[in-house]
Amino acid sequence: MTSSPGQDEVKSKVLVFGAGNFGSCLADHLGDSSHTVYMWSRSETLVQHFNTHHRNLEYLKDHVFPDSVKAIGPEFPSEDVIRDVDVLLFAIPTEGVRAALSSLKPKLNMDRLPLLVFVNKGIETGTHALTLEIIADTCGPEVAKIATFISGPSFAKEIVKRQPTSVSVASLSEEHAQQASKLFHQPWFRCYTGDDPIGLELAGALKNVYAIAAGMADGLGFENNTRAMLITRGLAEMTRIGTAYGASPLTFLTLAGVGDLFLTCSSPTSRNYTVGFRLGKGEKLDHITETLGSVAEGVTTTKGLKEIVNDLGISAPIASEVYEVLYEGKDVKERAQALLCLPAVPELDFPEETGKPAARLKKKLGVV
Amino acid sequence: MTSSPGQDEVKSKVLVFGAGNFGSCLADHLGDSSHTVYMWSRSETLVQHFNTHHRNLEYLKDHVFPDSVKAIGPEFPSEDVIRDVDVLLFAIPTEGVRAALSSLKPKLNMDRLPLLVFVNKGIETGTHALTLEIIADTCGPEVAKIATFISGPSFAKEIVKRQPTSVSVASLSEEHAQQASKLFHQPWFRCYTGDDPIGLELAGALKNVYAIAAGMADGLGFENNTRAMLITRGLAEMTRIGTAYGASPLTFLTLAGVGDLFLTCSSPTSRNYTVGFRLGKGEKLDHITETLGSVAEGVTTTKGLKEIVNDLGISAPIASEVYEVLYEGKDVKERAQALLCLPAVPELDFPEETGKPAARLKKKLGVV
Repeated sequence: MTSSPGQDEVKSKVLVFGAGNFGSCLADHLGDSSHTVYMWSRSETLVQHFNTHHRNLEYLKDHVFPDSVKAIGPEFPSEDVIRDVDVLLFAIPTEGVRAALSSLKPKLNMDRLPLLVFVNKGIETGTHALTLEIIADTCGPEVAKIATFISGPSFAKEIVKRQPTSVSVASLSEEHAQQASKLFHQPWFRCYTGDDPIGLELAGALKNVYAIAAGMADGLGFENNTRAMLITRGLAEMTRIGTAYGASPLTFLTLAGVGDLFLTCSSPTSRNYTVGFRLGKGEKLDHITETLGSVAEGVTTTKGLKEIVNDLGISAPIASEVYEVLYEGKDVKERAQALLCLPAVPELDFPEETGKPAARLKKKLGVV
Repeated sequence: MTSSPGQDEVKSKVLVFGAGNFGSCLADHLGDSSHTVYMWSRSETLVQHFNTHHRNLEYLKDHVFPDSVKAIGPEFPSEDVIRDVDVLLFAIPTEGVRAALSSLKPKLNMDRLPLLVFVNKGIETGTHALTLEIIADTCGPEVAKIATFISGPSFAKEIVKRQPTSVSVASLSEEHAQQASKLFHQPWFRCYTGDDPIGLELAGALKNVYAIAAGMADGLGFENNTRAMLITRGLAEMTRIGTAYGASPLTFLTLAGVGDLFLTCSSPTSRNYTVGFRLGKGEKLDHITETLGSVAEGVTTTKGLKEIVNDLGISAPIASEVYEVLYEGKDVKERAQALLCLPAVPELDFPEETGKPAARLKKKLGVV
C-alpha cells in the first residue's frame, strides 16, 4: 500500500506519554510514517529493552518497531525534550492525566504551544471530569481550547499490521483538529475531523458500559436480533445522555460513537464485553475481576455514569440495569427480563432541558 | 417469558399478504399473541399444506405455526375478507406492491380504513419510488398518510423462537404508528415509534448496498477495524443521502438504521453480504448470481441508488465503488484501495441543499 500524496511532506517530532497497548501502536504508526517519535515510559526495563530490541516487553510483543521510535524514561521528560517536540501525545489512563499534566505545565512554552493529542477514554473518578476539563484545570483554558482528541474503532494489533483503520479527530479548534488529522492520516489510518470533543469523550467512555450489557446478553444466550437491539438501544441511550450533557446527538453517529461501540460490543477480546459475558454466564463480579487481574474500565464508568445520569435527571434503563447487577448484586437474568418488560416508547426521545454540564465546562474555557 | 400487562386486551383480525420468510414469521408472531391471522399466498400447495400441517413448505420449515394462523389463497383475497379484517400487513417484495395495492384499492372500505402495515424494503425499479409513494399512487394520499412501516434488525428464524427483537415503527400519523406498535409489541418483540417513514424506508433499502461493501472488505481479508470503519462510514453515507433526500439524519440512529445495518453487515447468512464476500474473494458476479439462484436485493438497489445520488448531486464514494464493481466490472481490490486513498475530510458532512425529493412526495400527499 502506498502513501497518499502530500502526507510525507512535513515531518514532526512527537513525544508519546505512555507505552501501553494503544500508546505503542500510535508511536509505531507515527514512526512508520517517518516522524521522529519519543515514547516515554515509567519503566526503566521497558525503556532499555525497547531501545536495544525495538520491541515492547508487555504489549504487541511480536511486533518490531521502526528505528524512528525511541523510548525515553523512566524520569518525567525534561523541559528541553518537551520544548523540542512539535507534538505531545497522551496515551495514559484518564486517572493519570491530571498528575501528568500538572508535571507538564511548568515545562510548557506557553508562547509556542505544541500540538496536544489525547487518546485516553473515561471519566475521572470522583470529579466526573472529562479530559477537556482536566486540561483546563491543570494547564488553563488556552491549552484546553486547542487540545485535540482521537477516538474510533481501532484495535492496536491491527494498526501495527497496517489494517485499514479510521478514527474521529475532534477539537474546539478546527485548525488544530486539522493539524492532528494531517499528522496521523494515511490510507491505512484515515482521520475524520469534528468539532465536538465533549461528545467524542462521552462516547468513548460510555460505550464501555454498553459493551458490558452486550456481553451480558450474549452470556445469557440471546442471539443476533437481541445483540443488534442492545447495541442500537445502547446507542440511543448514549445519545440521550450526551445530548442532555450538551454534546451534539450527531457525534454518536461517528467513528468515535457507533464505530467504537460496534467494535467493542462485538469483540470477545474486549475486557468490558468479557466482564458482561461472564456475568451473563452466572459468575460473580469479584471472581471475574480477580481472574482478569484488574477492573475493566466500564465497571468504574458505570458508577460515575449512574451519578451523572441522576444529576441530569434523565432515563438510562440499560446503564441502570448494568449498575444494579455490578453494584447491587442483582440477578442478570431477572434485570434483563425487567428491561424487556418496559412499555413501548417513542424511539428518539431527547431530553427537553439540555446542555448544562457542557455549558458550565465551556464557560470555564471562556468559549461561548 | 410472560406477556406485559395490557398487551392481551384487544384482539385483532389480521390479513398478511405474502407467506415468505418475513411474512410467515410475523403471521406467527401475531398468532402467538392470540390475534386471528389470515396469511395469503399465491401458491395453492402452500395454502393446503399449511392448513393441514401448520407448517410452511418453503420457509422456517422446522417451525410449527399456531392454530390462530390460517392460510388463504391462491386467489387474491375477496372484498368480504378485506372488509372483515382490522389490519392489512404487506410482506411482499417491493416490486409486487404496486400490483397488489392496485388489486386491493377497489375492495377497500375508504370510510373505515383498516390499519395498513408495510415491511417490504427497497426502491421500486424504474420509478425509484418509495413504498409511501406507491401507496399514494395506487390508493391515494389519504391511505398513504396513515400507512405504517416496520423495519429493524430481525432475523425471522429468531423471531419464531421468541428471541428478544426490536423494531422501528414509523408513520406520518402518530396515532397509526401507535396502533401498529400496540398490535405487535410484546416483551420479546419491542416496538419503538417514530414519524419519519421516508428515513425508515431509505435506511432499509440502502443498508443492503453497504452490506455488499462490508462483505467485500471481509472477502478481501480485512479485519475488525476495517469492518467497523466500513459500517460507520457507510452509515455516514446513508445519513448524507437520506438528509439530502429530506429524511431526518437522526432516523439513521434507529433500529431501522444502524440496527439493521449492523445486523446485515455482520451476518454471513445475509444474501447481500454473501455477494460482497464472494466478489472480495475474486468470484464474478454472474457466477455468484447463478449459484445464489436469484439477484440479491442490494445489487438492484445499487443501480437505483446510483441514479438517486446523481440526481441529488452528492458524494457517496462507497456506493459508487460498489456500483463500479457490480456494473462496470472494476477490480474490487483496486476500488477498495482507491477509497482508502481519498483525502481526509470532516466527518459529518451534510449537504447544504436538502429535502427536494421528500418535499415533492409530501406535496403529493398533501402534507406540509
